[in-house]
Amino acid sequence: MKLKTPFQLSRRDLLWTAGAGAVTMWIPKPVKGYSGAEMLAAPVDTAGRVSVGISKWELDTPALCVDLDKMEQNFATLQKVMVANKIASRPHAKTHKCPAIARLQIASGSIGVCTTKVSEAEAMFAGGVEKIMMTTANLTPVKIRKAMALRKRCSGFIQAVDNEQNARDLSAAAKEAGVVADVVVDVDPGLHRTGVPVEAAVALAKLVATLPGLKLRGMLSYDGDGQHVRTFKARRARALEGMEAPAAAFASMKSAGLNLEIFSGGGSGTYNIQHETPGFTDVQAGSYLFMSGDYTPIGGQADDKRYTDFTPSLTVVTTITNAYTAGRATTDAGTKALVGGNLIEIVGATGMTYKTFGDEFGWITYQNPSRTYKVGDKLEVITPHCDPTVNLYDQIYGTRKDRVEVVWPITARGKSQ
Amino acid sequence: MKLKTPFQLSRRDLLWTAGAGAVTMWIPKPVKGYSGAEMLAAPVDTAGRVSVGISKWELDTPALCVDLDKMEQNFATLQKVMVANKIASRPHAKTHKCPAIARLQIASGSIGVCTTKVSEAEAMFAGGVEKIMMTTANLTPVKIRKAMALRKRCSGFIQAVDNEQNARDLSAAAKEAGVVADVVVDVDPGLHRTGVPVEAAVALAKLVATLPGLKLRGMLSYDGDGQHVRTFKARRARALEGMEAPAAAFASMKSAGLNLEIFSGGGSGTYNIQHETPGFTDVQAGSYLFMSGDYTPIGGQADDKRYTDFTPSLTVVTTITNAYTAGRATTDAGTKALVGGNLIEIVGATGMTYKTFGDEFGWITYQNPSRTYKVGDKLEVITPHCDPTVNLYDQIYGTRKDRVEVVWPITARGKSQ
Repeated sequence: MKLKTPFQLSRRDLLWTAGAGAVTMWIPKPVKGYSGAEMLAAPVDTAGRVSVGISKWELDTPALCVDLDKMEQNFATLQKVMVANKIASRPHAKTHKCPAIARLQIASGSIGVCTTKVSEAEAMFAGGVEKIMMTTANLTPVKIRKAMALRKRCSGFIQAVDNEQNARDLSAAAKEAGVVADVVVDVDPGLHRTGVPVEAAVALAKLVATLPGLKLRGMLSYDGDGQHVRTFKARRARALEGMEAPAAAFASMKSAGLNLEIFSGGGSGTYNIQHETPGFTDVQAGSYLFMSGDYTPIGGQADDKRYTDFTPSLTVVTTITNAYTAGRATTDAGTKALVGGNLIEIVGATGMTYKTFGDEFGWITYQNPSRTYKVGDKLEVITPHCDPTVNLYDQIYGTRKDRVEVVWPITARGKSQ
Repeated sequence: MKLKTPFQLSRRDLLWTAGAGAVTMWIPKPVKGYSGAEMLAAPVDTAGRVSVGISKWELDTPALCVDLDKMEQNFATLQKVMVANKIASRPHAKTHKCPAIARLQIASGSIGVCTTKVSEAEAMFAGGVEKIMMTTANLTPVKIRKAMALRKRCSGFIQAVDNEQNARDLSAAAKEAGVVADVVVDVDPGLHRTGVPVEAAVALAKLVATLPGLKLRGMLSYDGDGQHVRTFKARRARALEGMEAPAAAFASMKSAGLNLEIFSGGGSGTYNIQHETPGFTDVQAGSYLFMSGDYTPIGGQADDKRYTDFTPSLTVVTTITNAYTAGRATTDAGTKALVGGNLIEIVGATGMTYKTFGDEFGWITYQNPSRTYKVGDKLEVITPHCDPTVNLYDQIYGTRKDRVEVVWPITARGKSQ
C-alpha cells in the first residue's frame, strides 16, 4: 500500500479509512476491517440509541470524546515535521488502544504503530492494522507463544528483545512455529526501565543476527521520562546526549555488517529533536494526537512555558450532579473516568478548579468563576493524562463541530498482558 | 429467599452459589445465573488454555487474583459483627464490579448490594443479582429511562434521589414506564459531595412520599472520607457525630409517618461503629472483601497503627521484565494494572519498595532485601487501592492455596455511566 501524507489525504479518505465502518455500523458483517461484533459493540448510546449525528452534549456521561479536527491537525503537524526532518513516525498505540485510530495514523503517513504488550498487538491486528512494532520483550512462555502465533499471521509484526536468553527462547519458539520472527534490540538509554545496557547491545544484536529463528531489523531506545523535561532547550540536551551512547552502539552494529533498517525512539516531547541523532529512523510519539494536559507545562520552541505544538483533542463530558453548596459543585467523573486528576482544565470556563473527588465523582471549586453550574449541566474537561484515561473506556466518540461523527470501539482497552 | 449467615453456609454452598458456573464453564447455556457469553468470556487463559485448576503462578501477567479463603473470612467477619450489632450489610458492588461476587455476598448473609451508577446496576441484574440499591441519583434523561426500564424488570431495584426536581422527573418517568419506582433520599452527612442538605431532607422525603410514581423506602447518608480517618477512636467520633444530624432528620421523617425501612450508610472503616446511630439499618461496606493496602494505616480497635479487622485478599501477579541494574528491577504492572501506586506491598518479601513506574511498568528498589529477583520471576503484590484497580481488568482469578478455583468476569468494569 502506498502511503499518503495528510496533505494528499482528503477528509473523505480519512472517513473512508476509519469511519465508514462506524457510519454503516448496523450491517452485521465485516466492513473495512470492522467485525460485526465490533460494530454491535460500538455505536449504541444508552437506551439503544445510535449516537452518530447527535450533539456530543446529548451523550450520556461520563463520555470520552476526541475532536476530529484537532486530532487531524495533530496528525498533520507530526507528519509535516517528519517530512521536513526526513524521518518517519511510528505512533504508539498504547495511547489510544483503538485500531481504527491506528489505521488513520497509517493513512496519514505513519509507517506503522507501536504497542507495549502482545495482547495490544493482537487487538491491533484483529482491527486491521498490519504494521506493528512491539516495544517491550515477550518473556513468559504464554506471551512468546502468542507472539509467534501473531507473527505467523502478521508479516509486519516486529518485537523487541533485551536479553540473550530471551533471544534464544524466541528463536526456538519461532522455529517451532515455523516462522522467522522479526526482532529489534531494545537498548537502555539510561532510564534502567527496559532495554539491554548499551555496552552489551552490540553483542546481543550479533546474537540475534545469528539465531536461526530470528531476523534482526534494527534497534530502539526510548527515554520515557525525557519526554516531559521542561523547556525545549533542556529537553533537547537530554534527548541528544542521552541518545549518544545508543547511537554509538547503532554505529558499531552497522560496522559489523548487521541488518539495521530501524533505529526507533523519541516521543511526543522530542519528535522534533531526535532526528538529529545519527542513524535515527522513526519517532514513537504516542500522546501527540490527544495531547494530554500534563504535557502543557513542558514548553516548546515557540513558548518556554506552554507546549503548543499539538492541540489537546481528548475530552471527557461530565454532568453536574450536586450543587447545593456555595462555591462548589460535584460531577459524575472521578478517578474511574479521568486519571491524573488534580489540575483538570474545563473547556471554556475559567476561575475554577476541577479535581477528582474519589473514584466516582469530580469536584469543581469556584475562585473567580467565569460561570457557575447547576445540577444537570454538562461540561467538558481536557483529559490530564490521556493513556490511562482512554484505558478506562470501551468507546470513544469522534466529534466534529460538536457533532458525533464516529464511534470507535477501544478494542485494546485493558490489554495489559 | 431465606438468607443464611456464613456460619450456616458450607464451602459447598458457596461454590454452588457462585462458582459452579465457572467450573463447568464450557457448557454453552445458562448455568446458575451465568450466561453462555459470560462463560465464554471468562475462563480462557492466554493461548486458549482454561485456567481453572492451574497454579496462579502459571497465569500470564499482570493477573488480578483474589484469595478465596481470605475473602470468605472477610465475609464471615462482616456478618458476625452485623449479627452481633443487629443490623444488616448491603455491600457496595462498585468495589468488585462482579455479579458472581455479589451473589456470594448475598449468599453469605448480605441483604443486597449497592451500586453507584445505573449501568453498574444493569450489569448486576444481568448477572443474576436482584437486590440492588443505587446510592447516587439518576439525573440525565438517558439514565432516568434506563433506571425505569431496570425497575420494570427488577423489583428489588432502589435508587437514590437528592433533589426535588429529580424526584418529580423520576415520578413522571416511572408513570410513563408503568411502574412505581422505589426511592431512598440521599442525605449529605457534611461531605458536600452528594445528598440533599440535612435541613431540606425531611421536605424531600415528604415530597417523594406524595409523588404518584415513587415509593419512599428510606434514606441513606454516606461519609466516604470518614472511612479512612486514622485511629478507631477518632473514626468513631467522626462517624457518630457526623451522623447525628442525618439521624435527627430520619427521626423527623419517622414522626411524620413516612415509610422508612432503610437507613443505610457507613463503610469498611465504620462497619462496627455506625449501628450506634439510632435507626440505622445497614452498612454499605465495599472494600472489606478485598481490603486495600490503603486501609492498613487507619488502625482498628485492636491495634491503633494497623487495621487488621479484614485481611487483604486482592493481589496482582506480575513478572520481572528487566533486572540489569544493581539494586532494582522492572515489572510488567504499572498504573494500567495497579492504581494507587507508591507504597505497594509485595507478598512474602521485605526490605524493598514497589512503585508504579509509568503506565506500563512497576519498579522494585532494594533496600535490605529478603530476596532479589531475576528476569522471568513472578511476584504477587497487594493492591493498594482495590476499586479502581479492579476496574482495569476483565476477569478476576479466585484462588485457594494458590490454585485457580474459579474465573469470574468483571462484567460491570468500565460501567461509569
